Amino acid sequence: MAKILTLTLNPALDLTVQLPRLEAGQVNRSDEMHTHAAGKGVNVAQVLADLGHQLTVSGFLGEDNLQAFENLFAKRGFTDAFIRVPGETRSNIKVAEQDGRITDINGPGPVVGAVAQQALLDRLVQIAPGHDAVVVAGSLPRGVTAQWLRELVERLKALGLKVALDTSGDALRAALNAGPWLIKPNTEELADALGCEVVSHASQAEAANRLHAQGIEHVVISHGADGVNWFSVGSALHATPPKVSVASTVGAGDSLLAGMLHGLLSADTPEQTLRTATAIAAQAVTQIGFGIHDAAQLTQLEQGVRVRPLTEQ
Amino acid sequence: MAKILTLTLNPALDLTVQLPRLEAGQVNRSDEMHTHAAGKGVNVAQVLADLGHQLTVSGFLGEDNLQAFENLFAKRGFTDAFIRVPGETRSNIKVAEQDGRITDINGPGPVVGAVAQQALLDRLVQIAPGHDAVVVAGSLPRGVTAQWLRELVERLKALGLKVALDTSGDALRAALNAGPWLIKPNTEELADALGCEVVSHASQAEAANRLHAQGIEHVVISHGADGVNWFSVGSALHATPPKVSVASTVGAGDSLLAGMLHGLLSADTPEQTLRTATAIAAQAVTQIGFGIHDAAQLTQLEQGVRVRPLTEQ
Repeated sequence: MAKILTLTLNPALDLTVQLPRLEAGQVNRSDEMHTHAAGKGVNVAQVLADLGHQLTVSGFLGEDNLQAFENLFAKRGFTDAFIRVPGETRSNIKVAEQDGRITDINGPGPVVGAVAQQALLDRLVQIAPGHDAVVVAGSLPRGVTAQWLRELVERLKALGLKVALDTSGDALRAALNAGPWLIKPNTEELADALGCEVVSHASQAEAANRLHAQGIEHVVISHGADGVNWFSVGSALHATPPKVSVASTVGAGDSLLAGMLHGLLSADTPEQTLRTATAIAAQAVTQIGFGIHDAAQLTQLEQGVRVRPLTEQ
Repeated sequence: MAKILTLTLNPALDLTVQLPRLEAGQVNRSDEMHTHAAGKGVNVAQVLADLGHQLTVSGFLGEDNLQAFENLFAKRGFTDAFIRVPGETRSNIKVAEQDGRITDINGPGPVVGAVAQQALLDRLVQIAPGHDAVVVAGSLPRGVTAQWLRELVERLKALGLKVALDTSGDALRAALNAGPWLIKPNTEELADALGCEVVSHASQAEAANRLHAQGIEHVVISHGADGVNWFSVGSALHATPPKVSVASTVGAGDSLLAGMLHGLLSADTPEQTLRTATAIAAQAVTQIGFGIHDAAQLTQLEQGVRVRPLTEQ
């Protein structure tokens, strides 16, 4: 089993609220309201822990609402290397109505200043040695630039770590220049970062070739229910998940990323790596929340994943 | 200065969210989101602390999201005698849009079982001695009956405490039978508890007489911007606040209650007690939030309060 570090620069406290119907301008009473420590890197860490790996979690946390995060890290046995910053970690409120309509209200989160940014870099120098890989996932908090993210990826590479990156927009565009080991955009995120269309497999293969030339070994492009394309140097695979009934797509991308890391760090065959990762993502979709709670279901889903080389059309 | 205990049986974590416009079914991004430890008893304690009193706070808190409460109690120097219960203290989300529309989404809070209820009664026996008064304020959590509240008030009285009660509905109706020292309903809450109309001053005086006969010394009836009627044995006063521009009425009732306790426990004259309490409530209305942050403004508001005996019509 591997030792993996995940970085969540802009974590969130997810507040899920169930309501019969959201009435604006009124007092609405909810019978179900739950708070969860979240953020892409934290989510990836949870799935990796379910797969048996040893986790260190880091990034920035607002010091005014730490409890849900500290409780989760203690419960999961994660090594907590988060830098505390003044203020509140953002809350992301998700209001789910009986008819299926979802309203999101996302908070701003703390401003992360230069002192905290330097503190994280210093902490990473201390803790990085001994880890097999690092996941850098999610958006950037206020005060952190895309250029800083690029430098962060460069530092992590210089520390000898394989860097798996999952972000979007300016942050992805800048950090691609640092040549991470693995990226996992969807087609829109990749098109946005490269400034060109990547709809067809051929155009994706072309884009992946350019990214490989920049030192990015693994380009994993997610297509939701249509599956995953994985371009690595000398190999291109497509996986189609089995049809599942969708409970919630929250955490599906994080599950896919965790599954890819699991296979790559366990030295599974490429075919097996992609099969398992696709099944883990499909399983996440069948659940409210995510994580591997039913090993038998996962085995069944794995058997339903179809993997084929992308040279076949 | 007095030593005062406040009980909040169903506290809340207030989450205030500012949005240009709440769009249902969409992802809304808020630039301002803040969490505050709240609940009527906690609010009353804050205003009493601003007035220089020594506070003990108690009630039930969900153990999964204690931090905002524990931080507040430490910052304010409150003695924390809350019983911890499994689960999350409810969150009350208040979405304020640019046009002034407010949408509330209130959570359910934890279920408070028999063990926790007994633990609170035991704790109160230990901590009550030495306090000059106790405030019992707010709604009841799931699992706590109105009959239990009545018994709580009886226990507190038996421990030699003056009990100020601020609740509504079944809880108020049941607890009135225990004969608290002071109650502070608005006209609707009082009418609901007594099962009769109390719109005119004459009908209020009649209701107050009946309540005095039950051992309730002070009946404080709030009328919002129209002021306050205070019926005590042998005295009936009305206060009209000065006109103020309204920023938020949140905490105004809690401020009035704190002000009344302050005057009564400081042995101020009835006229001065009601004048100051009315000014504190008026000041709360001028603020987002509440509390006494501007002593000069308070003095000015006090001078604008008109107090007259209620025998004049």
